[in-house]
Amino acid sequence: MLTDVSQFLIRLGADFHRRGWVLGTSGNFSVVTSREPLRLQITASSMDKGRLQDEHFLEVDENGKKIGGTVGKPSAETLLHIAVVRATGAGSVLHTHSVWSTVLSDVYAGDGGFEIGGYEMLKGLEGVTTHEHREWIPILDNNQDMAQLAVQASALLRSRPQTHGILIRQHGLYTWGKDLEEAARHVEILEFLFESVGRRRMMEPINEKVRG
Amino acid sequence: MLTDVSQFLIRLGADFHRRGWVLGTSGNFSVVTSREPLRLQITASSMDKGRLQDEHFLEVDENGKKIGGTVGKPSAETLLHIAVVRATGAGSVLHTHSVWSTVLSDVYAGDGGFEIGGYEMLKGLEGVTTHEHREWIPILDNNQDMAQLAVQASALLRSRPQTHGILIRQHGLYTWGKDLEEAARHVEILEFLFESVGRRRMMEPINEKVRG
Amino acid sequence: MLTDVSQFLIRLGADFHRRGWVLGTSGNFSVVTSREPLRLQITASSMDKGRLQDEHFLEVDENGKKIGGTVGKPSAETLLHIAVVRATGAGSVLHTHSVWSTVLSDVYAGDGGFEIGGYEMLKGLEGVTTHEHREWIPILDNNQDMAQLAVQASALLRSRPQTHGILIRQHGLYTWGKDLEEAARHVEILEFLFESVGRRRMMEPINEKVRG
Amino acid sequence: MLTDVSQFLIRLGADFHRRGWVLGTSGNFSVVTSREPLRLQITASSMDKGRLQDEHFLEVDENGKKIGGTVGKPSAETLLHIAVVRATGAGSVLHTHSVWSTVLSDVYAGDGGFEIGGYEMLKGLEGVTTHEHREWIPILDNNQDMAQLAVQASALLRSRPQTHGILIRQHGLYTWGKDLEEAARHVEILEFLFESVGRRRMMEPINEKVRG
Repeated sequence: MLTDVSQFLIRLGADFHRRGWVLGTSGNFSVVTSREPLRLQITASSMDKGRLQDEHFLEVDENGKKIGGTVGKPSAETLLHIAVVRATGAGSVLHTHSVWSTVLSDVYAGDGGFEIGGYEMLKGLEGVTTHEHREWIPILDNNQDMAQLAVQASALLRSRPQTHGILIRQHGLYTWGKDLEEAARHVEILEFLFESVGRRRMMEPINEKVRG
Repeated sequence: MLTDVSQFLIRLGADFHRRGWVLGTSGNFSVVTSREPLRLQITASSMDKGRLQDEHFLEVDENGKKIGGTVGKPSAETLLHIAVVRATGAGSVLHTHSVWSTVLSDVYAGDGGFEIGGYEMLKGLEGVTTHEHREWIPILDNNQDMAQLAVQASALLRSRPQTHGILIRQHGLYTWGKDLEEAARHVEILEFLFESVGRRRMMEPINEKVRG
Repeated sequence: MLTDVSQFLIRLGADFHRRGWVLGTSGNFSVVTSREPLRLQITASSMDKGRLQDEHFLEVDENGKKIGGTVGKPSAETLLHIAVVRATGAGSVLHTHSVWSTVLSDVYAGDGGFEIGGYEMLKGLEGVTTHEHREWIPILDNNQDMAQLAVQASALLRSRPQTHGILIRQHGLYTWGKDLEEAARHVEILEFLFESVGRRRMMEPINEKVRG
Repeated sequence: MLTDVSQFLIRLGADFHRRGWVLGTSGNFSVVTSREPLRLQITASSMDKGRLQDEHFLEVDENGKKIGGTVGKPSAETLLHIAVVRATGAGSVLHTHSVWSTVLSDVYAGDGGFEIGGYEMLKGLEGVTTHEHREWIPILDNNQDMAQLAVQASALLRSRPQTHGILIRQHGLYTWGKDLEEAARHVEILEFLFESVGRRRMMEPINEKVRG
């Protein structure tokens, strides 16, 4: 019998897969099930997010070690989920790989991130109350050493506690929320903003670009 | 038991969400249920438009005050729906946030709007009978003071009564119709035209752009 | 009870609407039901192609006059369907409005059309056996006088009998086939080619474009 | 009664058709059913991949001759499937026609291929363990002589055994896997990478392009 959380994640995976945000078994989703001790329900490594089933979810402890679930093993990126939960107090972390997030994470890598300002949709991010908000999207270099990447993400989030999402270069988005619903909303909001920023940049008058 | 209007809005919300026009709880939909006194059925604030349910609709009076419905409260943008209904006599108002409307609302903000001319699809706008029609799409600056924005929209619509839709800068589209079906058609027509205008602009010969 | 043709058209309308090729009641579909005398089953004017029902189809005679069906009236564009059927012997004519066909019909209007060559997908057009085929896509100026446009289309098709589709400027595509299945395939093939040509053009090295 | 393989292929065809990767009866899918002697289950020529049915699959021998199945005949491209199976030991070969693969296969044709490096999604390709991997995507000229193209593909795959996919110019993608699931994942991964590479290229600063 499926829990509400599992049903939500299965539906979310199908929708994100259709949109092209978790193609080819990419991405992973987690929800905090206990704070003390820390426990997460997280998608097992290498599952097709478009066709998740109840047995594709694992339970992991505060070190990312599997302590429940039947099929598969935790992804190495579980450490990044735990780092985000610890640094932000989030109740859910979602990691996706979209084309626009991947492209922008590369275009702006040299600047260490980019700013999104002036969009009404920013108000979909928790705690943002005006379109005049300026959201900095930090970009971390990609790294196959997930423990190292987790340390970098933790340091980043402690120095910039207002952050709502992190891009990893040519890799994808990490975002989160107090619960699964908020985290899912943050994915939609950030993906909308990334596509808007990307298309807006392509519409700039060419003469400005040539001079720029 | 769902009314026909609620069924239509639920289906419309799911379709618009799939197309990326109301991501992350953005957008709101209203239908006039009474003229004297003025009453609107409107989506409650912060609902996921992709999964509307009957209890997500409220009834509001001519001041945007909730007078019926069980869950949630009216969005601040209810005032803009009422302003549009009063100025145009519309029976339904739809507000959406698409990437193309957002991008164009920013690209052409300095001109206060842009003209769409020569497209057969313009004939999908009520009262337009030839592709030679030239539709002016006005752009209002975004503003968190919805009462002020409603006054601006009213003034604009009274001075340009032929308007079929308004863009709010980096925010989205307001369009309307004599009934819900016509308003829904206007969303599809305007979104088609925005994407066509945007892509057409990107196809302009570069040498013209460099010289321009 | 639905005929197979009606079932196919209802499914096709829903698919094309989802893809954004017949938004806002645009487009119309016809199938020849008799040659002598000429009779067509055609979608009634102003129907939402995403939600066609059996009563949205009319029967028209060789002059485009309604001789069967319950709801609505024939579109003025019925004359263009009849002109195509007479000039080509087609068993089905499909008219769609996509963003890419609209944009290309404008970009290349000054040349009276454009050539598509070298694509394997060209082999999906009836009678084409190699990717080395060069398909000329003629563009007619848009015109609200459908009788005049029908005469122009007839003349064009008699002078270029190998044509598989015609664009009307800033309006959309007419294509056809010996039966409904072939006409539907031609829509998919031509839409694929239009998007490929459009995106390819945008990828051209800028320096070539500046020099060009 | 459908086998699991047929069910998977029917679902895959519907999904790929929806994404625009097998429009207009393009594409074909195969699965090895026996190694000694070599036997493949393969889609019959000219079937709509969006609506595959059990009778649309054929069995062919090591020469591409039909030895089982009721409807239709093998596509000429069956020879290419067999060449890939022989050269790589694959258990499944998938051939698709997307807009992005078509456009890139033309843009980079003069270089004989292009390199994709630095993307996390590369790890979705079998045997790739780091984003620092550099995948060379070879491009073969298109050719209506499939026997000749099969010889070229075989030679290419023997000289570059690490290859995960081949583009045929202005035609489409061939990719494969040890089984159908892996081959399907490779399609999603490569299509994601093609779109990312294409959009990234379009975002390059114009001044670099003008100087380039």
